[in-house]
Amino acid sequence: MRALNFLFLTGFLFAGSLALGQHRPLVFQSDFGLKDGAVGAMKGVAISVSDDLRIFDLTHEIPAYNIWEAAYRLNQAAPYWPKGTVFVSIVDPGVGSDRKSVVLKTKTGHFVVTPDNGTLTLVAESLGIEELREIDEARNRLKNSNQSYTFHGRDVYAYTGARLAAGVITFEEVGPKLNSDVVRMAYQKPVFANGEIRGNIPVLDIQYGNVWTNIDGATFEKLGVKKGGSVGVEIYNDKRLVYEGKVPFVNTFSGVKEGEPLGYLNSLLNFSLGINLGNFSEKYKVFSGPEWSVVLRAAKP
Amino acid sequence: MRALNFLFLTGFLFAGSLALGQHRPLVFQSDFGLKDGAVGAMKGVAISVSDDLRIFDLTHEIPAYNIWEAAYRLNQAAPYWPKGTVFVSIVDPGVGSDRKSVVLKTKTGHFVVTPDNGTLTLVAESLGIEELREIDEARNRLKNSNQSYTFHGRDVYAYTGARLAAGVITFEEVGPKLNSDVVRMAYQKPVFANGEIRGNIPVLDIQYGNVWTNIDGATFEKLGVKKGGSVGVEIYNDKRLVYEGKVPFVNTFSGVKEGEPLGYLNSLLNFSLGINLGNFSEKYKVFSGPEWSVVLRAAKP
Amino acid sequence: MRALNFLFLTGFLFAGSLALGQHRPLVFQSDFGLKDGAVGAMKGVAISVSDDLRIFDLTHEIPAYNIWEAAYRLNQAAPYWPKGTVFVSIVDPGVGSDRKSVVLKTKTGHFVVTPDNGTLTLVAESLGIEELREIDEARNRLKNSNQSYTFHGRDVYAYTGARLAAGVITFEEVGPKLNSDVVRMAYQKPVFANGEIRGNIPVLDIQYGNVWTNIDGATFEKLGVKKGGSVGVEIYNDKRLVYEGKVPFVNTFSGVKEGEPLGYLNSLLNFSLGINLGNFSEKYKVFSGPEWSVVLRAAKP
Repeated sequence: MRALNFLFLTGFLFAGSLALGQHRPLVFQSDFGLKDGAVGAMKGVAISVSDDLRIFDLTHEIPAYNIWEAAYRLNQAAPYWPKGTVFVSIVDPGVGSDRKSVVLKTKTGHFVVTPDNGTLTLVAESLGIEELREIDEARNRLKNSNQSYTFHGRDVYAYTGARLAAGVITFEEVGPKLNSDVVRMAYQKPVFANGEIRGNIPVLDIQYGNVWTNIDGATFEKLGVKKGGSVGVEIYNDKRLVYEGKVPFVNTFSGVKEGEPLGYLNSLLNFSLGINLGNFSEKYKVFSGPEWSVVLRAAKP
Repeated sequence: MRALNFLFLTGFLFAGSLALGQHRPLVFQSDFGLKDGAVGAMKGVAISVSDDLRIFDLTHEIPAYNIWEAAYRLNQAAPYWPKGTVFVSIVDPGVGSDRKSVVLKTKTGHFVVTPDNGTLTLVAESLGIEELREIDEARNRLKNSNQSYTFHGRDVYAYTGARLAAGVITFEEVGPKLNSDVVRMAYQKPVFANGEIRGNIPVLDIQYGNVWTNIDGATFEKLGVKKGGSVGVEIYNDKRLVYEGKVPFVNTFSGVKEGEPLGYLNSLLNFSLGINLGNFSEKYKVFSGPEWSVVLRAAKP
Repeated sequence: MRALNFLFLTGFLFAGSLALGQHRPLVFQSDFGLKDGAVGAMKGVAISVSDDLRIFDLTHEIPAYNIWEAAYRLNQAAPYWPKGTVFVSIVDPGVGSDRKSVVLKTKTGHFVVTPDNGTLTLVAESLGIEELREIDEARNRLKNSNQSYTFHGRDVYAYTGARLAAGVITFEEVGPKLNSDVVRMAYQKPVFANGEIRGNIPVLDIQYGNVWTNIDGATFEKLGVKKGGSVGVEIYNDKRLVYEGKVPFVNTFSGVKEGEPLGYLNSLLNFSLGINLGNFSEKYKVFSGPEWSVVLRAAKP
């Protein structure tokens, strides 16, 4: 109240919300889990940079060391965040090795602060590379953290992400521009040929046990299966056949009876398999990763 | 600083905190878990609506498809949030079916954005129904999301909740007023008769294994058991007797020795059973749900 | 916009961001887990105190009743948060007993709101005690919560922490100053003698299975082992030898081959044991707590 009166009397003013508005959202993702103090320490570093940063989390439950899943989760969520959002993604099995620490600016105006170890594979593809810069640790590293070699997430990535989000540094001040490509992981893209579609299972919808393929709606349409029609499905782990069956292609889970399998386009509009009020992955022991492939054909009901 | 100087020189001003103050807290609850990108995508949609929304979580660990627990958790937390708070609760096994998407305004001035599938059972009862509106998806749906049938949480509920919380739409602009009641789930209410109280176990205090009944303090008092007195307890799963015993009625866990059972009024002032530094649920295999019932009598110590 | 115009026309102004800036971050930690409504209710109470509080979490996954781990996690994260931050830490097996409810102001200007049951052991040591005050529940307790004996986290700690963070009360208004020390838990400090270091395993880096000792870098140096050198390690559970081996002392995980053990200084600069892309704790059944000890010696490679 004292501050208020002071302002009222003198006519001073402070562009509170404008300053706030200039801050970009800062969004964390990691494989740290939420059981220890690591995420809390990172957020403390960020708030120490600027105490009105708006901080969010995608997930900290990426399976330990699973760079592919970090890439997938980042790509799944990023397009829904506004231009200018700064993502800090830390799945970093090579911490302390010679992998580069970078900030990607996508063509859509999103920023990703991360070790360049494959994490950028999918956002580079879907959102495009506007510019890639290497973090200059001489300037962008938490003070007095030089003796600590193993928590770059806190000392370099959270710190740099917070400074970029708060406007303390510009993108150019991150460090030198890299003209090389980001590190990209190989994965099977969806292919239609001879009346069949082949694709990959990049990830599970883990909470419900649904199996998500990387076969997008446009590719799926080439089979010519209409809503209510039937799809023949084979799922392989390397060359071993794990599942073979027919599922109806429907809009949603309630399109089949409880306990029955279905095919549908998921929230990313990719072909997926589920069981109404059940768990397809557990029932048929189908999981995800580069070694899992799927073959789809049009079938008779 | 440049913005500050500009304002200082011209005398322009911007009601930063008032504008901020007009925003209502936006509070999410779901059965999505925190392992994938779903919650992150919802929050991105909300921040894209208004980048200074204040976003919170009740829990995203509701057991999959468990509408009853969603209803219970919402009712447990909502009264502690200020008037005007917008809750978005998404446990939606019927996504894509004909269940309605609604916003409830309670008599206490809270808003709940949810599929109307039973989730509103308990808040409708405890906070009262001021007005119920169906979400008009023609106006209140994330642009370009029409092909996606399965992620209404992001495309409809998070989007509508964020717009309501940010004041982009009024409650009236959610969609048409419904004159029907909310969908309500049946459950056993506490009854005192013939010196006995019968009630239900709606939920466990899961972290500690305490067993919470729906028997409120006022009903419990009808047994005439004072602090330090003894309560006879029977617990049934349908008609099968699972636990029978006597517990002292005390204020708190430290009122009995380590490892001993106790009866107490929990933080919602309902009669509950626990073990000091132990887990009542695990020890006696007592769980929660509509099929679990409890009978209490006054007992001799 | 109506509010904005009103302000513009009349010349009234409100020190939005200054008022916001005067708010201190409010940071929660507990053993409540995130599956029920407890954390959500606490945050609702805090936001009801002041709806522009900035609220964060360290972790709510402290193992139930584990005061030692609460002390450790708090100490691990607190130094990274800015001066003035208000921590609310609730691991409270003695809720309702005669343990005191206190607020510690550290010499570094951080505040901790907590039951005084040992939780303050480590921050008192590392950040220093500036002043300790007992919460006066007659003034600092959520209204109408007197019948509830078991959720002090919500009714006393969250409420008091929020009021302190929002500036509704000063530190002096928390309650009377205590001249006694905080409750401190006993634990083995690191000792160098006869060419050996003895220490304790206070905690695991649980997500990765790394074993963290309390042997700081300066003490470790007394062994005279250089980077690339070899350390002989014995780990005991009470007096039982659980692990005996030699590990190279390196900067980081990638300093050894996949699957091989290593010794390194962790992000707190304490000597730690891990396996590159593996789990030391699981492989050798080494866990943490006061009963776990470790002996280090210089070894030949």
